[in-house]
Amino acid sequence: MVEPLKFEILTIGNELLIGKILNTNAHWLAKRITSLGGKVTRILVVGDDVEEIASALKSCLERHPDFVLTVGGLGPTFDDKTLEGVAQALGRRLEVNEEALEMVKAKYEALSRLRGRKLELTPVRVKMATLPEGAKPIRNPVGTAPGVLIETEGVTIISLPGVPNEMKAIFEDFLVPMIKKRSRLVFCEKSLRVDGIYESELAPIIEQVLRGNPRVYVKSHPKREEGAAYVELHLTTSAETLDEGMKLIELTVSELKRHVTERGGRISEIAEEG
Amino acid sequence: MVEPLKFEILTIGNELLIGKILNTNAHWLAKRITSLGGKVTRILVVGDDVEEIASALKSCLERHPDFVLTVGGLGPTFDDKTLEGVAQALGRRLEVNEEALEMVKAKYEALSRLRGRKLELTPVRVKMATLPEGAKPIRNPVGTAPGVLIETEGVTIISLPGVPNEMKAIFEDFLVPMIKKRSRLVFCEKSLRVDGIYESELAPIIEQVLRGNPRVYVKSHPKREEGAAYVELHLTTSAETLDEGMKLIELTVSELKRHVTERGGRISEIAEEG
Repeated sequence: MVEPLKFEILTIGNELLIGKILNTNAHWLAKRITSLGGKVTRILVVGDDVEEIASALKSCLERHPDFVLTVGGLGPTFDDKTLEGVAQALGRRLEVNEEALEMVKAKYEALSRLRGRKLELTPVRVKMATLPEGAKPIRNPVGTAPGVLIETEGVTIISLPGVPNEMKAIFEDFLVPMIKKRSRLVFCEKSLRVDGIYESELAPIIEQVLRGNPRVYVKSHPKREEGAAYVELHLTTSAETLDEGMKLIELTVSELKRHVTERGGRISEIAEEG
Repeated sequence: MVEPLKFEILTIGNELLIGKILNTNAHWLAKRITSLGGKVTRILVVGDDVEEIASALKSCLERHPDFVLTVGGLGPTFDDKTLEGVAQALGRRLEVNEEALEMVKAKYEALSRLRGRKLELTPVRVKMATLPEGAKPIRNPVGTAPGVLIETEGVTIISLPGVPNEMKAIFEDFLVPMIKKRSRLVFCEKSLRVDGIYESELAPIIEQVLRGNPRVYVKSHPKREEGAAYVELHLTTSAETLDEGMKLIELTVSELKRHVTERGGRISEIAEEG
């Protein structure tokens, strides 16, 4: 069986640790990677601190995923410390990358024309082109700070900006083709609603059905709606084709239906929210 | 200066890694802990896997925070593996905890009365009362699975259920008094909107102002609203009294205002969203 590509997501930013913002970036990436047949094995959040970023990245690399995606901390401000942390984790120096500098320069030239006054390449702007040795900049189609690619010991590290539309644009333009090229799996899912049976009564049924269908994953979520309790089941699998994946899911659904009906419960399908 | 209590949050659930749900639990906890004067130093997300939970918890313990909060995976189903992971990380055995069993029993007796039929203490229900040796159960005021408290080498591990209203109820009932007793800091914050100046021009100003106000933290966020770009600044600090904290913040605000105005920019205050 084909193994999925493994990803770890390292999101960086004090605003996440103080609960100022929700980690919608990690959520979007996890969903998108899963839909491409990849597997996110861990998500980490650390603050804007070089030591913390370096130690977290090192722990990611020790687990040897195919990709580590860092998110945030690539901008011009003093607390954008991601590349310093990456450089420290890898024992590489930071240096002005000529290709990245051209990208940043072009952005400020365009902004200068737009504003009608010259925006100089100040030190904080050059900072966005200062990358760990051996890194490759990735064009940012909607913002100023380039993304950054580094290959190290079989792991591809991609640093993405934290501004959501910039992160998404680089992911779609650059990462999606890369993932599709390297992965040979597609992701399939289905949601079910189970009424008339407790989650704790459902648990041994699911366990039994999954013993016969080890490639399908079933997660149960107790829910409440207008006072009525029910259980939502979310079935997922990865397969080499959508057809093969949906067959695995449908087989599991029919077995679950049989057992639940025998116990006096009801199963219905839930349309995916997309 | 009084040090804040340090927290790490370990959220557990495949549904987070496939991007099915947003990590609103970690967000809520981070915000609530910060408002109590605590400091969240790291957030981790792992799947429903004993080895992953154990290895992540071990890495949290190595950093010696005051608290590690695990969230999720306490329920009756086969994929609720948190306590197994905790036991493995600590090298402790799992055993039926009499106090926890009484709590679970009482819940099912109440449910039996409500339903008019006897709900037995099946193995999957007893599982919710099967805790690592030396653990103390925490009463769950709104659900079935108790929370779990373990003290180990100066770190307090608290395991909370993943159902949001259960997690919040246990946090408010049990953890808030515990944190207030152990912490002597309050958290203060203010948001500013800066117009008419680029983030990259603002960066050196912030850096200069913070050198003179090291206890205040300022984070800048580039924003866009109806086509107009501006920068949001979020100032935070912890202090022994609200008064002392707000004085530190106001001093920083007035220095920022002076520098920004000199450069032709404008600063206004933003009401907190609460």
